[in-house]
Amino acid sequence: MNARVTRPIRIGLLGAGVVGEGILQVLSDHAGSIERRMGTAIEVRRVVARDSGKPRSPRCEGLLSFDPDDVLADPEIDVVVEVMGGLEPAGDYVRRAIEAGKSVVTANKALLAEHGHALIELSEERGVDLYFEAAVAGGIPVIRVLREALASDTVVALRGIVNGTSNYILSEMKERGLDFAEALSGAQAAGYAEADPTLDVGGGDATHKLAILAMLAFGAQLRPEDIPTEGISDVAALDIQMAARFGYVIKPLAVGAELPDGSLDLRVHPALVPDSSVLASISGALNVVVLEGKMLGPCLLSGYGAGALPTAMSVVSDIVDVGRNLVVGASGRVPQRAWRGEHLSKRAVAAPGRHVCRWYLRFSVLDRPGVLARIAGVLGAFDVSIEQMLQQGRGPDSDEPVHVVMLTHEAREVDVRHALREIEMLRGMVARARALRIES
Amino acid sequence: MNARVTRPIRIGLLGAGVVGEGILQVLSDHAGSIERRMGTAIEVRRVVARDSGKPRSPRCEGLLSFDPDDVLADPEIDVVVEVMGGLEPAGDYVRRAIEAGKSVVTANKALLAEHGHALIELSEERGVDLYFEAAVAGGIPVIRVLREALASDTVVALRGIVNGTSNYILSEMKERGLDFAEALSGAQAAGYAEADPTLDVGGGDATHKLAILAMLAFGAQLRPEDIPTEGISDVAALDIQMAARFGYVIKPLAVGAELPDGSLDLRVHPALVPDSSVLASISGALNVVVLEGKMLGPCLLSGYGAGALPTAMSVVSDIVDVGRNLVVGASGRVPQRAWRGEHLSKRAVAAPGRHVCRWYLRFSVLDRPGVLARIAGVLGAFDVSIEQMLQQGRGPDSDEPVHVVMLTHEAREVDVRHALREIEMLRGMVARARALRIES
Repeated sequence: MNARVTRPIRIGLLGAGVVGEGILQVLSDHAGSIERRMGTAIEVRRVVARDSGKPRSPRCEGLLSFDPDDVLADPEIDVVVEVMGGLEPAGDYVRRAIEAGKSVVTANKALLAEHGHALIELSEERGVDLYFEAAVAGGIPVIRVLREALASDTVVALRGIVNGTSNYILSEMKERGLDFAEALSGAQAAGYAEADPTLDVGGGDATHKLAILAMLAFGAQLRPEDIPTEGISDVAALDIQMAARFGYVIKPLAVGAELPDGSLDLRVHPALVPDSSVLASISGALNVVVLEGKMLGPCLLSGYGAGALPTAMSVVSDIVDVGRNLVVGASGRVPQRAWRGEHLSKRAVAAPGRHVCRWYLRFSVLDRPGVLARIAGVLGAFDVSIEQMLQQGRGPDSDEPVHVVMLTHEAREVDVRHALREIEMLRGMVARARALRIES
Repeated sequence: MNARVTRPIRIGLLGAGVVGEGILQVLSDHAGSIERRMGTAIEVRRVVARDSGKPRSPRCEGLLSFDPDDVLADPEIDVVVEVMGGLEPAGDYVRRAIEAGKSVVTANKALLAEHGHALIELSEERGVDLYFEAAVAGGIPVIRVLREALASDTVVALRGIVNGTSNYILSEMKERGLDFAEALSGAQAAGYAEADPTLDVGGGDATHKLAILAMLAFGAQLRPEDIPTEGISDVAALDIQMAARFGYVIKPLAVGAELPDGSLDLRVHPALVPDSSVLASISGALNVVVLEGKMLGPCLLSGYGAGALPTAMSVVSDIVDVGRNLVVGASGRVPQRAWRGEHLSKRAVAAPGRHVCRWYLRFSVLDRPGVLARIAGVLGAFDVSIEQMLQQGRGPDSDEPVHVVMLTHEAREVDVRHALREIEMLRGMVARARALRIES
């Protein structure tokens, strides 16, 4: 077959911050190899920034605009690259781009988590591409792997650590024996946490990413608010030490699996993982995603999930794929997902209470005769049986509370929650009980 | 742009064993989604098997032939899929396919390790594709990641565990306290090692894969025999226990990095890795490859590297990409590599003696006064300084040899080797000294 002569692919960039700059730099530095891989050249037509008065880099020379219509209403632009972030007006711009028949590459996780299913279906209706590698773990090609390597397989489960801030904080707490507040301050000082860290340490960021991954892996149309989410701010330095004594490390997990009845087990929460496991060894701000393919088996990807350069590089990889689709006429026809069905379907998220696993429980009690027996009695009444126990603190007849840590056998979450509520009302209990799931 | 109407891509399959069968199954089960992703359909024209008298599956009905010319000399076949294995005649068939203007997808690691550079250059001259995901760690998309995610980056280093047999054996030795021979028998019984395990436990298989990865990552034209290779058969159960006491796990590593002078540090050998590291946690027959991109940072991929289904799925992913290149007219123009240069260049492999690292040394001695002092003296004379030491065995005046294990500070390999040769000649030494590198 002869090499085709095709016109350049013209793109409009929405967003001129560090990621936008990074994209322009990579496109410029690698123009030759990009052209070879695409079969044609890329031409940046326009860069839309906010009118913030900030000086812009020389790369934007002649391209800069403050009006998004210069991209969205330009019939000659083929691909819109959205790196502004935020739900609106980015969501409005992405929708308008798709409706105007333009393919879209975006890094916007909040937008995809909230509206991804509607946008994907709109893009397929219109026959354009919507690519978003950079929205989930920027420097790790997990969307690409779901789309290409697993495209002929079925994903039965996925799990990961997808928020670098939370992983960094829990790693620091373990490495240096810090409590949460100290580790958070350190993370903020080192640039691993924002001044307002809520979305990261509260689990919301991980939930957005899990919603996107579940959409692609299981064909699920769901809302992030349907996913039970627990942040890391209640993890105490003592929990980390106790977990270590039992041979576990506490990690901020995101988990997804299909259950036999078709509902989805989706959860974000800190959990104990065996210290010999791969997940336990992924420390600092690193991310990891493990995809379990029915035929392929486990596929684990790890790397840094954030940072302007890794994110820019993921966006450029997507631009090249979208460009190739335009040249081959396959826009809107390469499913972003690894499931067999044609359409995303509303999937029920399994009620968290049904989840069965082993548990780490910690009670703070005044050490009086009979306290342990009463705790064990309540647990037993709710079918929660104790596998191991450790007590830490002064002996009996002291006025200092002691910490009693138990690892249970497998128990249903609803039973554990009921038992803990009753235990908290026993005489001698001096604080809320702590419960963490143990993932095998 | 309108969807193009293009004719089906016609493929010829060389090899009808378990992998060939797996490929036919995947192509058949996923024809619909493959067609959507490619922009056109795949048509299997011919399946060439050896005339072995074996019954063939019904999938080969009407397609079967015993004559490779039915594929290589058929002008209508676009893509040749080679899953026969072995250097010849597979190498001859691949060359002829390329010279006839056909793209090639292969799983043949020995062929690519020995002749990959020549075949890649031939394919680029002829303007056809040569894809080989399945040749390195079958179920892990490492070639794809090198080609796409790292295409706009520079790989500065790579390391991995790429032979599942060796990893399984060392994992069993650790988990169950077995010696090498016992673990090898167990691996053979469980199907993780061949009757003739030489290529696996001797390191040759890992060396082939490292040669291919180095070709793609560093643009290096080199021969597998240039890569210093050490197998795992000299690793003793005692080494694994001693390493654990120091906080290390012994893993079968493949390592590659560019040195400041442009030569390449390439090595295959068992090594001590910290027990908290990610590499230490990859056990059993799992493989792992860590690619270090200059801009992307570390990208780690792990999964099963062998097995008919994972291998078949990697081949099909390549067929889809090659098909898309044919439709877009980019055949032979998408570099399989992540380096910037146009051509592969002969690269010097750094002399192993130059390598500097910490070392694990084990000596078997009769415990007599002065033995340790003499050993330390020789080491010191060669600039090898001792960081830690452990002695295991009966006390002095016994006739049983004791084992003396030392961890050194950083030392040059050539100095360590010279020192060990001199130490082995000291009075009181009862066996060869053992040396293992410590990788951080």
